[in-house]
Amino acid sequence: MIEKDIPFSNAEYQRRLVKTRHAMEARNIDVMFCTDPSNQNWLTAYDGWSFYVHQGVLVFPDADPVWWGRNMDANGGVRTVWMEDSRVWGYADKYVQSTERHPMEDLANRLKELGLGSARIGLEMDNYYFSAKAFQVLQAELPDATLVDATALVNWQRSVKSDEEIAFMRKAAGITDKIIEGLLERVEPGVPKNEVVAEIFRDAVRGIPGAWGDYPAIMPLLPSGSEAGAPHLTWNGRPFTSGEATFFEISGVYRRYHAPCCRTLMLGKPSDDMVRAEGAIVEGLNAGIDVARAGARACDIANALAVPLERAGIERGARCGYGVGLSYPPDWGERTVSLRASDETVLQPGMTFHFMPGLWMDTWGMEITETILIKEDGPAEPLCNQPRKLLIKD
Amino acid sequence: MIEKDIPFSNAEYQRRLVKTRHAMEARNIDVMFCTDPSNQNWLTAYDGWSFYVHQGVLVFPDADPVWWGRNMDANGGVRTVWMEDSRVWGYADKYVQSTERHPMEDLANRLKELGLGSARIGLEMDNYYFSAKAFQVLQAELPDATLVDATALVNWQRSVKSDEEIAFMRKAAGITDKIIEGLLERVEPGVPKNEVVAEIFRDAVRGIPGAWGDYPAIMPLLPSGSEAGAPHLTWNGRPFTSGEATFFEISGVYRRYHAPCCRTLMLGKPSDDMVRAEGAIVEGLNAGIDVARAGARACDIANALAVPLERAGIERGARCGYGVGLSYPPDWGERTVSLRASDETVLQPGMTFHFMPGLWMDTWGMEITETILIKEDGPAEPLCNQPRKLLIKD
Repeated sequence: MIEKDIPFSNAEYQRRLVKTRHAMEARNIDVMFCTDPSNQNWLTAYDGWSFYVHQGVLVFPDADPVWWGRNMDANGGVRTVWMEDSRVWGYADKYVQSTERHPMEDLANRLKELGLGSARIGLEMDNYYFSAKAFQVLQAELPDATLVDATALVNWQRSVKSDEEIAFMRKAAGITDKIIEGLLERVEPGVPKNEVVAEIFRDAVRGIPGAWGDYPAIMPLLPSGSEAGAPHLTWNGRPFTSGEATFFEISGVYRRYHAPCCRTLMLGKPSDDMVRAEGAIVEGLNAGIDVARAGARACDIANALAVPLERAGIERGARCGYGVGLSYPPDWGERTVSLRASDETVLQPGMTFHFMPGLWMDTWGMEITETILIKEDGPAEPLCNQPRKLLIKD
Repeated sequence: MIEKDIPFSNAEYQRRLVKTRHAMEARNIDVMFCTDPSNQNWLTAYDGWSFYVHQGVLVFPDADPVWWGRNMDANGGVRTVWMEDSRVWGYADKYVQSTERHPMEDLANRLKELGLGSARIGLEMDNYYFSAKAFQVLQAELPDATLVDATALVNWQRSVKSDEEIAFMRKAAGITDKIIEGLLERVEPGVPKNEVVAEIFRDAVRGIPGAWGDYPAIMPLLPSGSEAGAPHLTWNGRPFTSGEATFFEISGVYRRYHAPCCRTLMLGKPSDDMVRAEGAIVEGLNAGIDVARAGARACDIANALAVPLERAGIERGARCGYGVGLSYPPDWGERTVSLRASDETVLQPGMTFHFMPGLWMDTWGMEITETILIKEDGPAEPLCNQPRKLLIKD
């Protein structure tokens, strides 16, 4: 008898299914095939590092979902999903990384056996881990089916978090706070960067009382000095240096839920440009958080941020945030709402965003960011509890 | 002036280009577009956690490669690639996770501008991060081009490692040794699993003298007891327990090069079944390493392993290894050679494999594995230096 440790209540998974089925119905989709590991987990609780082979979740209008993957991972399936064992289907190892066979042949056969050979099948055409080849094989094997692009259909159902999910994100935020406090203590000129990252991981995975730490969907990013003009560099063995600012883009994680918070640490005296940018970013964050209320739109946050930045002569080309929550590598963003001038999504209570006005300039970078929760009333609530400013060690 | 820290010599990158161009020529490919982050790094040295948006490397027969990605990541491009800045191309942020535009429109335009609108374009149809949608957009935008499935074309060029690469893998193996030695010391009944993982990460990233540690392409896997029948579970906050075996699937990493080594630790007395399995696996590993010589075939290793396993009545459905080296999440395998009965690839000096005869049974699992290097003469060399046996703490 396997002892399962399903993260959420059964009612929660049923709510998720109902939402997803409504969205499928609205698009006339008979069966949905989800390959994004975050969607797989959100729908079924499946949790394993097995998304490097083809796998996914089938959502039906009238039956429990099926988790489908490699035979050896079906063992992990029956241990982690909320459905009964018969809803975990494995395919033979001969399909794995073969030049002659493809796992999607197995999936297509199963769909045909279910009488879905001429169904309208929803596919995550631009989500992670659904390859061009997987699509071609399904096309060839299911000539009578209609393959519908349902990219992000499930992601959108994830935008509004339940109370159970928000409790997880608060735990993640507690871990984030611990990581930031630890690194502020440890970063000094001469300390090799990887030594600090080693302690970031240690803090992240040890977690806090009541919350063991999980792995992040994005590895710690912490470029320094002029490198910090490049937002997505990881680390190396070089020491931190006086006169340089380093931004730390990190997130604590509790059972796959993230609450990122970035801070920038200057070793020494910041330049006038940096001080001016800090002022504008903090003012913009405060203004954005204040307008981030139920009923307002995603673009209102971006527009509120833009005012002080423009006044300071700072032009940001990029969006300033995105939905955040449950995630697997390579991204902790939800890939739905973007905080940018063109996104008119109406904010609802329970939505969570990483409000992320990073500045990546020619010779320095600065990230001061917050994960925020849209409330029933009043302004958004930042989940982490860090001073909203450029941090300085002189 | 940006100070670059390119991992390998210019001669090394030129050798890689020559190999890749030969393979392109043999397939009549005019330009190759590589989306697999491992291939991007191998060709250009690009290194950043930015593969969650569309990006890639273009390989031409007669000009330096181009790294193409999001504008903000072009900053990371000019800081990490060996080519000159003009070979780093960025696309505008409006293409990022938009429902109206797709980054592949930008790529298609650039190919047309280069006069490649009716070229034969090699695509990694079944490598990571090349989505079905990306393919559809390229098809639509390049109606006169011939899109050729060149999955793993570059991966195959990576199979034989240069001396420079082997030196990196030896450093990674040194880190792996340190991780395993540390966890053996720390695992005790009652210690929460995440506490041990925290120290695994710390050891992994601190590295060893002369080698700072990088992040692994697969997170530490360490299922215990009956959970260990599921190979790809990560960790949780529950304590290690007497009477249970845990396998540890981990790898040290030096500048994206991996040298995985798995060991299984029994807390208490192993069952007769486990002892019998241990004997068969160790005998099979020794036999496989002995036949793993230049000129032999991949299947010879699998067949040598199978003899003692069959004698012990153990049937493994899965392949028992794969090429290993440079990698990004979600997989540290090279996705080329598989150690299985049907793979007749001839072994060459410099090839490296994770020889991985994991056993995932109903009530327990066991992994005792080696990263091996094929030598000019004699049997393969295991890169790590750990006792090849079931480890027991009684």
